[in-house]
Amino acid sequence: MKLTELAEQIEGTLEGDGNPEITGIAGLDDARPGDISFMINPKYAAALEKTQASAAVVERKWEGTSPCPVVRVDNPDKAMALCATLLAPEIPKPEPGIHETAIVAEGVKIGDGVSVGPYCVIRAGAEIGPRTILSAGCYIGHNVKIGADCVLDPHVVVRHQVKIGNRTVIHDGAVVGGDGFGNYREAGRWHKIPQIGTVEVGDDVEIGSNTTIDRARFGVTKIADGVKIDNLVQIGHNVQIGENTAMAGLVGISGSTVVGANVMLGGQVGVGGHLKIGDGVIAGGKSGISKDIPPGTFVFGYPALPYKQYVANHHSVSRIPKLKEQITALERRLAELEKMIGKG
Amino acid sequence: MKLTELAEQIEGTLEGDGNPEITGIAGLDDARPGDISFMINPKYAAALEKTQASAAVVERKWEGTSPCPVVRVDNPDKAMALCATLLAPEIPKPEPGIHETAIVAEGVKIGDGVSVGPYCVIRAGAEIGPRTILSAGCYIGHNVKIGADCVLDPHVVVRHQVKIGNRTVIHDGAVVGGDGFGNYREAGRWHKIPQIGTVEVGDDVEIGSNTTIDRARFGVTKIADGVKIDNLVQIGHNVQIGENTAMAGLVGISGSTVVGANVMLGGQVGVGGHLKIGDGVIAGGKSGISKDIPPGTFVFGYPALPYKQYVANHHSVSRIPKLKEQITALERRLAELEKMIGKG
Amino acid sequence: MKLTELAEQIEGTLEGDGNPEITGIAGLDDARPGDISFMINPKYAAALEKTQASAAVVERKWEGTSPCPVVRVDNPDKAMALCATLLAPEIPKPEPGIHETAIVAEGVKIGDGVSVGPYCVIRAGAEIGPRTILSAGCYIGHNVKIGADCVLDPHVVVRHQVKIGNRTVIHDGAVVGGDGFGNYREAGRWHKIPQIGTVEVGDDVEIGSNTTIDRARFGVTKIADGVKIDNLVQIGHNVQIGENTAMAGLVGISGSTVVGANVMLGGQVGVGGHLKIGDGVIAGGKSGISKDIPPGTFVFGYPALPYKQYVANHHSVSRIPKLKEQITALERRLAELEKMIGKG
Repeated sequence: MKLTELAEQIEGTLEGDGNPEITGIAGLDDARPGDISFMINPKYAAALEKTQASAAVVERKWEGTSPCPVVRVDNPDKAMALCATLLAPEIPKPEPGIHETAIVAEGVKIGDGVSVGPYCVIRAGAEIGPRTILSAGCYIGHNVKIGADCVLDPHVVVRHQVKIGNRTVIHDGAVVGGDGFGNYREAGRWHKIPQIGTVEVGDDVEIGSNTTIDRARFGVTKIADGVKIDNLVQIGHNVQIGENTAMAGLVGISGSTVVGANVMLGGQVGVGGHLKIGDGVIAGGKSGISKDIPPGTFVFGYPALPYKQYVANHHSVSRIPKLKEQITALERRLAELEKMIGKG
Repeated sequence: MKLTELAEQIEGTLEGDGNPEITGIAGLDDARPGDISFMINPKYAAALEKTQASAAVVERKWEGTSPCPVVRVDNPDKAMALCATLLAPEIPKPEPGIHETAIVAEGVKIGDGVSVGPYCVIRAGAEIGPRTILSAGCYIGHNVKIGADCVLDPHVVVRHQVKIGNRTVIHDGAVVGGDGFGNYREAGRWHKIPQIGTVEVGDDVEIGSNTTIDRARFGVTKIADGVKIDNLVQIGHNVQIGENTAMAGLVGISGSTVVGANVMLGGQVGVGGHLKIGDGVIAGGKSGISKDIPPGTFVFGYPALPYKQYVANHHSVSRIPKLKEQITALERRLAELEKMIGKG
Repeated sequence: MKLTELAEQIEGTLEGDGNPEITGIAGLDDARPGDISFMINPKYAAALEKTQASAAVVERKWEGTSPCPVVRVDNPDKAMALCATLLAPEIPKPEPGIHETAIVAEGVKIGDGVSVGPYCVIRAGAEIGPRTILSAGCYIGHNVKIGADCVLDPHVVVRHQVKIGNRTVIHDGAVVGGDGFGNYREAGRWHKIPQIGTVEVGDDVEIGSNTTIDRARFGVTKIADGVKIDNLVQIGHNVQIGENTAMAGLVGISGSTVVGANVMLGGQVGVGGHLKIGDGVIAGGKSGISKDIPPGTFVFGYPALPYKQYVANHHSVSRIPKLKEQITALERRLAELEKMIGKG
């Protein structure tokens, strides 16, 4: 595709020669002629100076020089997404239809254009919406409802009663609707509390590889529309996650916690049980949240604190050697005074 | 089921009208007429006041008022488990028998009433005890022994030689008996130490979804009776976990560590290798344990400390600004004195 | 095998009776007659004194006494690996050939001696090198290239375009080449950035059970030769891991980070995105790395600091109660002086 055409498709303003044929997409350092690249953050201006890319996408307002043509756009991340779609290598999509090895219980409702891959197992009462793709080896439990245009990667497990919305993507090996972790203690031993609730996952959700989302003890574990969950995340029973909240890999959220909308949790963040995390909260990587967090707060640390308070504490510790010196000086001066006075 | 009957079944004492028909189970906030609910902690008394549940289970000794009939019980958690069993939606249980697509090696011993789901693979020398359920797509390695009345959820992997006791539940995608992580270094490179030991899992154990329990380098990785393990937990080679110990999601226990009985590890706790964690230890969420912990200790923090010591340290840091003020005041007063004396 | 013969095979120097028949391998505490054991660290000398092993492998230079014959070697870890190979229980290896239930697309290239287990699915364009073993239920995506002598345990997923080198081992349920986690925000919602890159895994790599390695946004996520990755590790898109780097369970590495060669990351370590971790860096368990780390540094803590600095900070905090006492004493002495002077 010619650069002029690409620029048009991503709604960008081209500066420079529009003739180069763009065949690939690469980082500034790795790009070779034929590639389009991206400078999303101006701190990579040096890399842009040295890039061999045939063109670079930059923010509209960016001021600077480039060795190659630039395409100015409003949202470079969005432009990247569009370019990736336009220039993706062609991987054959699964064909609609039910693979002959798939085991589909009688009465399961399968929408138009659905693809059910080899070795899938779909239990009675399930419904799969139009154009949804189940890759190889997925397990769909009794009475599961999956909406339209979803993609389930290989080996995904969705247990009984779970509801999944539309356009939701579940990556390889993820488990939605496994039992919550609940036991009561009697006579010194644990006994299981049956987990009879379910999970409801909204529209446009993404669930990462080998992530686990537990069914509710009773009631519903709820993942709202637009939530994005990375790999190896653990979401406990009866948790509620608000709209457009995003969480990175290895996050753990304990049972019955309510996470608001537009929250961002960094990698390995842990959130205790029965907490309320307000809308728009941001938690830095590895934070350990043990208390409710008001909306809009940026927290960090273990235990997590509002960032200013975290920094103050951190700063305090670094002051200690200085304080120690001051105290020693005071002691010396005071001893001298005492000596003088004593003599006096 | 009538409330009077339900109260009887959970060995509770009913106060109020026993006529309502109970058809579901829900949290105090979510409950609707027909539901039974639970107030396990008196701090939720306000939620009880506003509940629409048809009845609420409370602790026998609780004093307070309720808008709906209450059922007093000794152990509300246990009552919840019983109610959940009584009121669970009916999900068909796998029928006994070996699915025609299961691949079962010759000579494998299958007990009475066992259910082997579609696409299971069972290798030679394995034994499956009576009434045990293998859901779809489980892999059972050579010479594995699984006891009676176990449930293996879809996609569980149990590698060769592993032994599983009775009434043990292994959730979706868990791997028991994968190789331990062991390498030696020679000439600047890592070389694998073959992991020729195995794993022994006791009776009444629960293993969470996508959890991994490694086989021993040699000898045995041992999970004692009654241990409860949540999702995405990593248990290293040669670890020993004592009876009725419970651990929450994303816990990691490094090789050769011995964890006592009745230990509780919060979510994301990490335990170093070759340590001894005494009976009854409790570690708060995200603690990082790098030393042996004596029995009965409550630890917290990274590195984990006995809780009192953790709090003392934490408190110390918060004192620093005050100390700084005191030092500044001292310096001022001392300077004045020095001036006076100098003049004197 | 006679002890003399075993000693010879592991290139050790035998001291004591070489006649005992060695049939097993065990830890010093668990060993019984017939077992060979290992004292790799002299701190276990007391365990050696009490062992019932028929022989113990020790470091060549070790000085001490043993109740049983000893075999002196240069590298006890290597000797352990050799012994484990020699004394491993015989588990039948998968036979070469393609299981009748495997679904192999037309045109897939399968090398000599390859074993493809039951219920494997191999997509078009894939190539599997000689003698590689795919255990049961593996999924191999379009155009995947896997080298010679690899072992893929049950339920491994390798997504489209991914390249795997030779002699690489991928354990049960691991996912290589799942989508990276990338979204852009527009009008208050997240939109997916297609992940059109791939993953390249080198020779002699080990990837743990249920570990996830994400494909690049574009370009390549790269795992160099000799890298050893434990279970439940998350490696983000476009990460690069240098040769012979090792990382323990539950480590998370965020997108676009470059980890050098010969790095060691302890369990649950987290590494932020777009960082550079130098060659030979060691990070203690649970460290949270948020900045570039120069080569050869040992770091610890959250946020991770060079170890000396971490210890200094830690030490500072423990000094606070003492500082408080000193300040109180100063205040008292100063008050006395002031009183005297005032009187004076």
